[in-house]
Amino acid sequence: MQLECFYHSPRSNWAYSYDKDSFHLRVRTKRDDVDHVVAITGDKYDWKHYHHDCAMEKIASDSLFDYWECEVKPERKRFSYGFKLTSGDDRVWMIESGIFREEPYPPGGYYEMPFIHEIDIFKPPEWAKSAVFYQIMPDRFANGDPSNDPEGVLPWGDKPTRESHFGGDLQGIIDRIDYLTELGVTAIYLTPVFESPSNHKYDTIDYRKVDPHFGDARTLKKLVDVAHAKGIRIVLDAVFNHTSVDFPPFKDIVKHGEKSKFKHWYHIYDYPVRIEEGNPNYDTFGFFAQMPKLNTAHPEVKNYLLGVAEYWLKEVGIDGWRLDVANEIDHSFWRDFRRTVKSINPEAYIIGEVWSDSLRWLLGDQFDSVMNYPFADRVNEFFSPGDADAGDFANKINHVLMRYPQQTNEVVFNMLSSHDTPRILTMMGSDKRRLKLAIVFLLTFIGTPCIFYGDEVGLAGDGDPDCRKCMEWDFERQDRELFDFYRLLIDLRKSNEVLRSGRFRFLKVEAGDSAVVYERIDAGKHFTIWMNNSDEEKVLSHPIVADDWIDALSGEPVKPEDGWMRIGLEPLGYRILSRTIE
Amino acid sequence: MQLECFYHSPRSNWAYSYDKDSFHLRVRTKRDDVDHVVAITGDKYDWKHYHHDCAMEKIASDSLFDYWECEVKPERKRFSYGFKLTSGDDRVWMIESGIFREEPYPPGGYYEMPFIHEIDIFKPPEWAKSAVFYQIMPDRFANGDPSNDPEGVLPWGDKPTRESHFGGDLQGIIDRIDYLTELGVTAIYLTPVFESPSNHKYDTIDYRKVDPHFGDARTLKKLVDVAHAKGIRIVLDAVFNHTSVDFPPFKDIVKHGEKSKFKHWYHIYDYPVRIEEGNPNYDTFGFFAQMPKLNTAHPEVKNYLLGVAEYWLKEVGIDGWRLDVANEIDHSFWRDFRRTVKSINPEAYIIGEVWSDSLRWLLGDQFDSVMNYPFADRVNEFFSPGDADAGDFANKINHVLMRYPQQTNEVVFNMLSSHDTPRILTMMGSDKRRLKLAIVFLLTFIGTPCIFYGDEVGLAGDGDPDCRKCMEWDFERQDRELFDFYRLLIDLRKSNEVLRSGRFRFLKVEAGDSAVVYERIDAGKHFTIWMNNSDEEKVLSHPIVADDWIDALSGEPVKPEDGWMRIGLEPLGYRILSRTIE
Repeated sequence: MQLECFYHSPRSNWAYSYDKDSFHLRVRTKRDDVDHVVAITGDKYDWKHYHHDCAMEKIASDSLFDYWECEVKPERKRFSYGFKLTSGDDRVWMIESGIFREEPYPPGGYYEMPFIHEIDIFKPPEWAKSAVFYQIMPDRFANGDPSNDPEGVLPWGDKPTRESHFGGDLQGIIDRIDYLTELGVTAIYLTPVFESPSNHKYDTIDYRKVDPHFGDARTLKKLVDVAHAKGIRIVLDAVFNHTSVDFPPFKDIVKHGEKSKFKHWYHIYDYPVRIEEGNPNYDTFGFFAQMPKLNTAHPEVKNYLLGVAEYWLKEVGIDGWRLDVANEIDHSFWRDFRRTVKSINPEAYIIGEVWSDSLRWLLGDQFDSVMNYPFADRVNEFFSPGDADAGDFANKINHVLMRYPQQTNEVVFNMLSSHDTPRILTMMGSDKRRLKLAIVFLLTFIGTPCIFYGDEVGLAGDGDPDCRKCMEWDFERQDRELFDFYRLLIDLRKSNEVLRSGRFRFLKVEAGDSAVVYERIDAGKHFTIWMNNSDEEKVLSHPIVADDWIDALSGEPVKPEDGWMRIGLEPLGYRILSRTIE
Repeated sequence: MQLECFYHSPRSNWAYSYDKDSFHLRVRTKRDDVDHVVAITGDKYDWKHYHHDCAMEKIASDSLFDYWECEVKPERKRFSYGFKLTSGDDRVWMIESGIFREEPYPPGGYYEMPFIHEIDIFKPPEWAKSAVFYQIMPDRFANGDPSNDPEGVLPWGDKPTRESHFGGDLQGIIDRIDYLTELGVTAIYLTPVFESPSNHKYDTIDYRKVDPHFGDARTLKKLVDVAHAKGIRIVLDAVFNHTSVDFPPFKDIVKHGEKSKFKHWYHIYDYPVRIEEGNPNYDTFGFFAQMPKLNTAHPEVKNYLLGVAEYWLKEVGIDGWRLDVANEIDHSFWRDFRRTVKSINPEAYIIGEVWSDSLRWLLGDQFDSVMNYPFADRVNEFFSPGDADAGDFANKINHVLMRYPQQTNEVVFNMLSSHDTPRILTMMGSDKRRLKLAIVFLLTFIGTPCIFYGDEVGLAGDGDPDCRKCMEWDFERQDRELFDFYRLLIDLRKSNEVLRSGRFRFLKVEAGDSAVVYERIDAGKHFTIWMNNSDEEKVLSHPIVADDWIDALSGEPVKPEDGWMRIGLEPLGYRILSRTIE
């Protein structure tokens, strides 16, 4: 056995409370190197009377490693543990103090879970686990009140530039709420709605004022109320990393220099504030001089921004915050942010924008979720035109899954496209069959899915600004077949808890092949999903238990033969099977 | 190269700010598998103009791995990075999204340090880095006020049992402050001093009252003032995990059962509170029914205990808290504890009692330090009688060092003995030469050293209660030679900053051999320490730079020959060399 490849860490995603009674342990070994792993657990204060062995299951593999997991239900809220790893006749024990050929006498040197406190357990909001999100850019979704349109608004549906305004607003969303209900989504993530000179509003001028071109606080409140009445939650976008240069505190610094009472609100190098040869003498978002970076560590700034978070939670009753450029703001700020938000609404959902490994923010003290770009990248890469390798895809997806505890995976914000990426149809080479495969994967995978407005009716588009085009409201020009497909899949997810919280596992993924079979399973239901991600007809076959499978979309029975399921699929076809476990 | 053995995590001890300008990166590879590692860093928003390669140095090895480190000084408080690893002609790149044979186009998929915020940087108190601690159990150190002795006090120096009281008190410590000054220690860690029925006082009855057998709040204040006047800091023991059954809230629950207004203060399963067949129906420390576990997650309990922490910081001006059974209390409590303590005294030193891997508590939001039992175990194992393997020792010490960021290693609480272990002399088989080797290692190693009262005058003793015997004040019976040795070594540490914060590295450690040579080095000073941990005379030789070495204790010059230093050592002898770097 390759001892150097063993990995366990006695906290974080390798050892965590899933809920107050269940504790998950994970171990990593070199791929195909170890036959069995057993977790040896006991109470360090009385090992003799309280100890228990727990066989671990190989739950995932990536290109380098196998991952083993088990669920421990400790009797006394505390336990110490080690691992016994076996390969053929070879056996070793791994505990915190090292790896041994003989069983180390417990509990000395064993890993420890000293005491399980419910208050420390990471519990994302329950509703987020079941939600299907829909992302809306208000300027582009629907114009419900032409009287508030900005000057120079373009005709609806014109090609967008980075500067164009189209007049969409909150009333427009209210007017179209039945459309969203019909689609079946249960939550809306709105890009920023506060006063700002731009069309995207990621450069705020007034955090306590709805942009007049979108409406006012009353319109926002009405939207929340109308949505809530339809069972739809509303999450707003918090742009706390930076502001517009027109935000009054920044203007005050520009005007008064070092004498400004706001001088600590930003990171200013020296005075006067200026831009020389394109370089501002203050910290910015990226290199954008128009987006000065706030000093979120300063108590005044923190209090101001926490006040904003509190204000909108209380004033209009929103259900959460999506945090823009969240990874560039200090952890200390986010800890206080969570405390503030959860004290007002314990069920508020906090989603950070972090494009890379986000575990540091997901330990229970900061966010509930992050935008899962690593997931999007891998799904889009696999289903878009080109050489698709199912083995590689499974390795990467498993790698992403093993980064976080299970409760995080259940609410991580999975989107395949957004205002910052090309549209999904375009990424799929304008091939609707590929788009459908990707959407089937999204809506049958673990995590909270989010659909970018218009993808469901066939909007195409490259990156910003092309992806931010106006929603298509002309029924004749909407792809209604695609809309029905989305609706069907959303409904399937909502009607089957197993698709939200059941175990995910790849069943058939081979290097060099492009077919994928995977399952979702819990105590009551079992799904298998079959995908032919190639341009040729294929018959996928895989050994399968039970013979009472049905096509989950049509309800028709599908019978295996001699313990093998054989599924014939069109090029880029898929089939979703399910059965009830009795 | 063994790709499966590479390890990096984009946060914690693998990637952290050492101070506001310096960021440390670490990578792990299989031992002796990789020749060079280079960190490739750049600004993700403008890689072309801001990028920089940084060669990593192999700073440590353990039995399985080599550890590489470099210090990055980013221009703009943010950077993305990857690693290029070379072995012979073989080259690979490791970034967050995987390991590649070709250089991945930056910054896509690279690791990220999105923005360095000073508020997030873990900064333990500066004084703790330079401190030499002395641990005192008040009942056993000195009896300064016989009028407050408890009934049935035993004659000073009698053999202790688990129940015996000897009458030691705070006035006794005040009276002996010059002794501590002479020894040279700069801080005292006092085991609990609050009212409690036991001699050790780890079962508190009144957290706001000094135990009357030890004195009162005024005596404590006087001790702090007298100590401060001598440049000695005082750290108290916070026993917040559990209380005595005589703590009034627990008594109230026993009396009033479910109607008690304190019923949420503990973890009670049902009522009435009782003990059946030795099993209490409430959570306890270990299985001790007499030590009921507090519900530290409950706001009332938390506020009460934080009030206690605040009270003594303000009332008598203590310099920190040592936290008993810290790992069994919730993280949420400790976050608020740190906030409270640091708001009163930003330089207060917070040391948790955690016997195993403690990184989770040392990320800047909870403790400054932990009691470093893993260090003690390894040092005591190596220097005590038996087969000593220097290679194994170095592997284990390096493994301990690589667990934490450098600033944590600089203040981790290193003690070789305490009230919970046998005394160091006894662990060393009563061989003073072995004890001296262990103490030389302790006082020339990175981390805050602590001496258990009496070890310095030759007190021996097995585990509790034997290790808790009375301090020897009879000058004739004190081992004055040993005392002078401690004094000399403490002085050496205090006069040489390099012994506190210089780089530590083993120079000569061979498997199967027992000799050890290691160095401490910074920009101004270089120490090499030579130890013959065997019962035979030995000449240790090692190639060495420069020829201006002196014996650091005697000041005599020590010359290398032909680039080799040859040091003849008695059995269990040592020598400490130093030179000034110009």
